[in-house]
Amino acid sequence: MSEPRTFLQELLDAGLFIDTGVKGLYARSGAFEHLISGIDSAFAALGAPERPEVVRFPPGMNRRHFEKSGYLKSFPQLAGTVHAFCGSHHDHQDLLGKLAEDEDWTGGQAATDVVLTPAACYPLYPVVAQRGPLPKGGATFDLQSYCFRHEPSDDPARMQLFRMHEIVRLGASDEVVEFRAAWLERGQALINRLELPFTLDLANDPFFGRGGKLMAAGQRSQQLKFELLVPIRNDDQLTACLSFNYHQDHFGETWGLRTHDGDVAHTACIGVGLERTALALIRHHGFDVSAWPTGVRRTLWGEG
Amino acid sequence: MSEPRTFLQELLDAGLFIDTGVKGLYARSGAFEHLISGIDSAFAALGAPERPEVVRFPPGMNRRHFEKSGYLKSFPQLAGTVHAFCGSHHDHQDLLGKLAEDEDWTGGQAATDVVLTPAACYPLYPVVAQRGPLPKGGATFDLQSYCFRHEPSDDPARMQLFRMHEIVRLGASDEVVEFRAAWLERGQALINRLELPFTLDLANDPFFGRGGKLMAAGQRSQQLKFELLVPIRNDDQLTACLSFNYHQDHFGETWGLRTHDGDVAHTACIGVGLERTALALIRHHGFDVSAWPTGVRRTLWGEG
Repeated sequence: MSEPRTFLQELLDAGLFIDTGVKGLYARSGAFEHLISGIDSAFAALGAPERPEVVRFPPGMNRRHFEKSGYLKSFPQLAGTVHAFCGSHHDHQDLLGKLAEDEDWTGGQAATDVVLTPAACYPLYPVVAQRGPLPKGGATFDLQSYCFRHEPSDDPARMQLFRMHEIVRLGASDEVVEFRAAWLERGQALINRLELPFTLDLANDPFFGRGGKLMAAGQRSQQLKFELLVPIRNDDQLTACLSFNYHQDHFGETWGLRTHDGDVAHTACIGVGLERTALALIRHHGFDVSAWPTGVRRTLWGEG
Repeated sequence: MSEPRTFLQELLDAGLFIDTGVKGLYARSGAFEHLISGIDSAFAALGAPERPEVVRFPPGMNRRHFEKSGYLKSFPQLAGTVHAFCGSHHDHQDLLGKLAEDEDWTGGQAATDVVLTPAACYPLYPVVAQRGPLPKGGATFDLQSYCFRHEPSDDPARMQLFRMHEIVRLGASDEVVEFRAAWLERGQALINRLELPFTLDLANDPFFGRGGKLMAAGQRSQQLKFELLVPIRNDDQLTACLSFNYHQDHFGETWGLRTHDGDVAHTACIGVGLERTALALIRHHGFDVSAWPTGVRRTLWGEG
């Protein structure tokens, strides 16, 4: 008896994903991208009443900002630094010689000023801090970008390069806490309209190393992170499609973010994984989009 | 007398660009992105009659494919390799120690399987080669992705991370030559509808090192590259907004791409720099988009 096809194999066979030879790095068809754009719009529409400022960062950020963010303390294993050749003609000949002999040629690559964006909101905080204290009532931003995580995997819902749409709130602690509470409701309402099964749960980030367990426990005990989870790869494995994060004053302290009243600003962000949510929809409603429930299609593309 | 503001400064002052502290790396406002999406759609519409297959790659590609492409021979200085921390708890402590002392901590980063995409079409050829010989009449693809070039610059039209939309043709040499000739006309027609001044000229790529001049001269003498140039940064400096490239059998030989008849396939690509074209429009029509000529707005957004 042959093995059942994996979900990844089904996606490849249907032409929605195209293999690039690297785990977690796929090209996608126009049909898949149409689905991504529907989810992107539906999520942005949820945030529209708050009139967020739309900002779009490229998929890379300032290395100095990244270093200062604290990411390397918690998740060094996931970050991607961008390196470049800065050598002479002689160095170039040496590089090409190694390449021809199938030897490692990358040792001479030097770190540039750019690091791949690890989460859509990381480049935002230093940029907002440059503007001075927040306006009265705080500020809200709408972000979307490619993010990189070095975690090669056979799970199609765990890519190395993927898109995240985020709504970010900066302000006084009560404003930020209220924002996250409202979005816990909104996020569930969206996934209900998309007719997907889900669980909402306390969660923690994948902190690195020996101290990681302690940090994860602290994050859980303070209820700083919630995830909305959907079975995607298979029925027994839940994947986070949305996350609802309260950072307390972590980024406020790091970047000197101040409220209108001069207090250290608190921050929160709500993120949706666009590819993950697309995969959840395919998993639960099938590969034939035209046969999806009318309400789902209306939510995504205003059809019906 | 104070210096006149540069175009970059005007973009920052108008809030269309947001400084990230790294040359050639900017966040953009929603208004700027609306402009990008208009150009993107107008360019795709030009290619629609050819019914290209839409494929979207993430901003990184398979390092093995990149190595085999020949890019490192010609443009080693522009490429961005992605590196990651793969060490132990002890290595992590060492990294954090260096970071705290403001020493270079990047020496231990190891090259991953991912390289930033240097041009939208580079990841395509090996993927198409996997499918076997081309169908009769060849194949046409519509691509769009972020690209990376390590060339930090004060020129807002020369970013390190920028978006390129490409139409790529693979087939017999006559099919591919005819495609490029048709697009030389179409590209000019589009820029005319956008009411931008331009020059069409023979061009060459920025080949590296001592042999670079010879390769550039060969590319010119064979008329392999044309560029459509618009003054953007100032009146005296022309910037390529579109390029029309005939690769002869370079990628066909490299990847074993075959036509329906079993010959080595030829390839050509037409690329538009989305940010560059947006900047050209702002430069020539002003910062108030609502005051732009009706025909330009109709071409971009179907308005009027």
